Amino acid sequence: MTNIISRRDIDFLLYEFLDVEKLCERDYFSEHDKDIFSPMLDTAEQIANDHFVTCAESGDKNMAELIDGKVEMAEGSKAAMDNLCEAGFIAASLDNEYGGLQLPSTVSNACMSFFQAANVGLCGLPMLTIGVANLINVYGDEEQKTNFLPRLLTGHFYGTMCLSEPHAGSALTDIRTKAEKQDDGNYSISGNKMWITGGEHELNDNIVHLVLAKIPGGPAGVKGISLFIVPRYRLNEDGSIGEDNDVALAGLNHKMGQRITPNCLLNFGENKQCTGYLVGEPHRGLEYMFHMMNEARIAVGLAAACCGYAGYLYSLDYARERTQGRAPDNKDPNNKMIPIIQHSDVKRMLLAQKAYSEGSLALCLYASSLVDDEKTHPDASAREDAHLLLDLLIPVVKAWPSEWCLEANKHAIQILGGYGYTQDYPVERLYRDNRLNMIHEGTNGIHGIDLLGRKVLINDGKGLKLFIAEIDKTIADASNEESLAEYVTSLIESKDIVIKTTEALVAAVAASGSNVFLANSSTYFDMFSNLVIAWLWLKQADVATKSMTNAYEADQSFYHGKIQACQYFFRFDLPKIKTQAELLCSLDTTCLDMPEEAFAC
Amino acid sequence: MTNIISRRDIDFLLYEFLDVEKLCERDYFSEHDKDIFSPMLDTAEQIANDHFVTCAESGDKNMAELIDGKVEMAEGSKAAMDNLCEAGFIAASLDNEYGGLQLPSTVSNACMSFFQAANVGLCGLPMLTIGVANLINVYGDEEQKTNFLPRLLTGHFYGTMCLSEPHAGSALTDIRTKAEKQDDGNYSISGNKMWITGGEHELNDNIVHLVLAKIPGGPAGVKGISLFIVPRYRLNEDGSIGEDNDVALAGLNHKMGQRITPNCLLNFGENKQCTGYLVGEPHRGLEYMFHMMNEARIAVGLAAACCGYAGYLYSLDYARERTQGRAPDNKDPNNKMIPIIQHSDVKRMLLAQKAYSEGSLALCLYASSLVDDEKTHPDASAREDAHLLLDLLIPVVKAWPSEWCLEANKHAIQILGGYGYTQDYPVERLYRDNRLNMIHEGTNGIHGIDLLGRKVLINDGKGLKLFIAEIDKTIADASNEESLAEYVTSLIESKDIVIKTTEALVAAVAASGSNVFLANSSTYFDMFSNLVIAWLWLKQADVATKSMTNAYEADQSFYHGKIQACQYFFRFDLPKIKTQAELLCSLDTTCLDMPEEAFAC
Repeated sequence: MTNIISRRDIDFLLYEFLDVEKLCERDYFSEHDKDIFSPMLDTAEQIANDHFVTCAESGDKNMAELIDGKVEMAEGSKAAMDNLCEAGFIAASLDNEYGGLQLPSTVSNACMSFFQAANVGLCGLPMLTIGVANLINVYGDEEQKTNFLPRLLTGHFYGTMCLSEPHAGSALTDIRTKAEKQDDGNYSISGNKMWITGGEHELNDNIVHLVLAKIPGGPAGVKGISLFIVPRYRLNEDGSIGEDNDVALAGLNHKMGQRITPNCLLNFGENKQCTGYLVGEPHRGLEYMFHMMNEARIAVGLAAACCGYAGYLYSLDYARERTQGRAPDNKDPNNKMIPIIQHSDVKRMLLAQKAYSEGSLALCLYASSLVDDEKTHPDASAREDAHLLLDLLIPVVKAWPSEWCLEANKHAIQILGGYGYTQDYPVERLYRDNRLNMIHEGTNGIHGIDLLGRKVLINDGKGLKLFIAEIDKTIADASNEESLAEYVTSLIESKDIVIKTTEALVAAVAASGSNVFLANSSTYFDMFSNLVIAWLWLKQADVATKSMTNAYEADQSFYHGKIQACQYFFRFDLPKIKTQAELLCSLDTTCLDMPEEAFAC
Repeated sequence: MTNIISRRDIDFLLYEFLDVEKLCERDYFSEHDKDIFSPMLDTAEQIANDHFVTCAESGDKNMAELIDGKVEMAEGSKAAMDNLCEAGFIAASLDNEYGGLQLPSTVSNACMSFFQAANVGLCGLPMLTIGVANLINVYGDEEQKTNFLPRLLTGHFYGTMCLSEPHAGSALTDIRTKAEKQDDGNYSISGNKMWITGGEHELNDNIVHLVLAKIPGGPAGVKGISLFIVPRYRLNEDGSIGEDNDVALAGLNHKMGQRITPNCLLNFGENKQCTGYLVGEPHRGLEYMFHMMNEARIAVGLAAACCGYAGYLYSLDYARERTQGRAPDNKDPNNKMIPIIQHSDVKRMLLAQKAYSEGSLALCLYASSLVDDEKTHPDASAREDAHLLLDLLIPVVKAWPSEWCLEANKHAIQILGGYGYTQDYPVERLYRDNRLNMIHEGTNGIHGIDLLGRKVLINDGKGLKLFIAEIDKTIADASNEESLAEYVTSLIESKDIVIKTTEALVAAVAASGSNVFLANSSTYFDMFSNLVIAWLWLKQADVATKSMTNAYEADQSFYHGKIQACQYFFRFDLPKIKTQAELLCSLDTTCLDMPEEAFAC
């Protein structure tokens, strides 16, 4: 099997770092235990290797294309998706009632990591289908659930999210798609939707589009947006596939990466024959969508983490095999060349990849455990806390992996040198695939604004306080380990910096207004994320240190690697927090003040 | 015309920043003046627009392929190259004697910047041809010069550099290609060479390969490497094209970017019929090659700078046109959407691109002016100083633009959002094209080792002293401008940090050996480069400030932009120098100590 994600690391994160078995004490998960989780993980790894890895390269070279009026995907795509669905990975985290397996999100996302690492482009389909199923499960009416949920969960239908329009990407306020009420109570949908992953294909029976649209006469802006289920084919009374619902493919986007799955421009209702079914109440569409968005954003963070992880492991294997040059203190050309993993600068690029990709995976699975907590924690206030903490962290979960695991992929190419720049090795594809993750589900810039402008402020900063309390717990635990003292001290110092900087910025809103407050939100994001990732690394290093003593030799190496990656992050990355905080506290207006006409003549 | 490089900026750099007209006072350049430079620049911009921009996209989509036994390049490639050659841009900086125009390198590289920005992949051909012509001009014998130089300068022959082999990329010590002396005094060449840009094509009459090979019985390692001219077709006595010289195309590399020009694996002497002509003396090949390498490395830095620059200007235009969202303090959806250039975070991404790409262009043209000085300065010690300073800076010139203008290209994609990720816009191609520049002409990691391990040490650190003296000049000049006081102070502080860190590291060699000394050479590179780029930005801001008072309105905006970009670099990037220095002074061994087996299990 190709080593795309370290199974040892997955087990470490699930059972040692997050103690996922404890979830089985809760009613909702009471039918599960490690004996169920482990075979699920085995199956995911196996299917990922047998079916997802195998069509990743061909899917990149033969991107989805319109052939004889049908969108054709690369050979193997259908078999891969069928296997994933049949093994229950769409249904994994959904309620039993409509066919779900009621697995913890933490575990289902750990399973998903193998598919993401194997073929991130194809994973757009399950990601969106799970999201659509989740949303219908929570907000749909009984008829909608009965009609769509079971077939989404078995993969007979796939889902899409139709938010953006050609002129409105980040700013949904300005969407123009219309939903006009008909005599039968349903709506006639008309408008153009852009960037629709899986918007048309022939892999299965039907496609369920979730469409944001405005009902004429509603409030202006986001408060007038409603949400509709718009199937590609209508359903007959008996639930069988009925006639075409007037959703037309207007074009395919030819992307830099993630090319295996079609990305579409769709025209709804060109012939005024497109029926949409309102979800919940009118004008509350964005609220529903955003409620489910946290999980979609974890999926994007996870996708980025897994692209980074797959590149890390590939370049690691390469570095162990490829010989080149000699050590600085032993350059005699009569000596043998050494494997490049022995060069310190190659180790640097491997350690950076390890710190970023394993750190990102830890972040995404931790966030998934918050999803489990907000849904199933026996204590109501703990559920609310988990929700608040997740809300605070979600910009980091989505955006940090997409930035730094892209950097990891850059390093993977560099380790392979010229070979890494060719299509004969997967690392350049991973780099291209991963570049999308900074853009979709909210650009990283938007997440910076969301973090500083909304998330740290809600409930008088309660999310931030909860986060600090989590850090303090880790500090208390790690303080018992003398070998971690350096990191404990750094984390305390960094935490204080972030708190003080946040206070300084919040105080500035009153004095200087929101434009100045938000002018450097990306730098705030960088500073805040540094703290989050450092915390997760200390937490991992603490678990590793405590487990080291009684571990077998191979496990000792594994734990040693965790501790060294923690050291790398604390020494090479975390210190940036100081200069970032200085810039923020100065309320710098370099960017804000730049006159448009001064950019270039 | 497409705005790919700001002509105003080129004029600023040449005439205001580097005062290139002063060079015309030297004998070597006495036939030139601004009235010759400016039309050359006009012509370059025109040809770049008419012929290089136009085949950039098609050359990317239809990469060089073997068709019926011949390597075919995209339509338009030949016309583009013919135009470039006929207008004299290969001959530009070479001596009159063999048909050169004897232009300053500073000016010829400024001309080249338009071609690089328009179509960096195709520019591999002129870059290498200029390099080969330069080398033959300096080290070739009369017969070699007569046979090859005039036809290289007119573009009837193109050149290649054949250094790497499949098993030996960075470590030329270990090349295996053999050169066996024949009775006629020439050599029989046999071996495989990898990554040969322009290694085979049908654009013109002949290809002149410069090949590194070992003469059996010579010293081991790099001291046994000799340099040979190996034409694709031999020349008859009368100079006409003769028979095939047994250089066989063994394969084409399919790259992530720079796809228009073929990149080849070549087999030399499969039939023992490959003749090579020794350049200079045996066993001195690497020395010759490295003597010319500085100019090749400026070309790579320039290529990276221009990819960054083209992406910057494209995303700038886009940001001015595209409307989306509203300002944080004015979010009423009934108001009009604003052009995204008005969002502070978009300005940040534009300013970063401006700081990196204009900073890189300034760096490359400054380095070119050192080439002019080492060759033509009337004072012998000034020539030597220029040579030393260039030697010191060349790792930065090659590697910094390739890292940070790639980052610029990442920002350009981000500004275009989903659109930037599609092949309908050039920014994703620029990102892919630019990724090569971190790898070829020495990987960036190797340049970090070269900088710290060799360049700062040669002649007892004289190069470093010369560099510090240049910084001090700029500090003295800028100290007269009150508005620059902040940057003057920062630059003094940063300079002192770099000096002290360098001293601490050099002292450590004795104590801890070269492995520890070089363990964090990439971080040393980052720190040192930060100082170089900050210095060049202050130098630009100083010129801009001094010219501001009497400038027209449009020029005032231009100068304002330079000063704001300086501010951006000093506030957002330069401060990193402090944490980089701390890590270096601690002689950190995180990377060095990482055991191989601890990376992943």
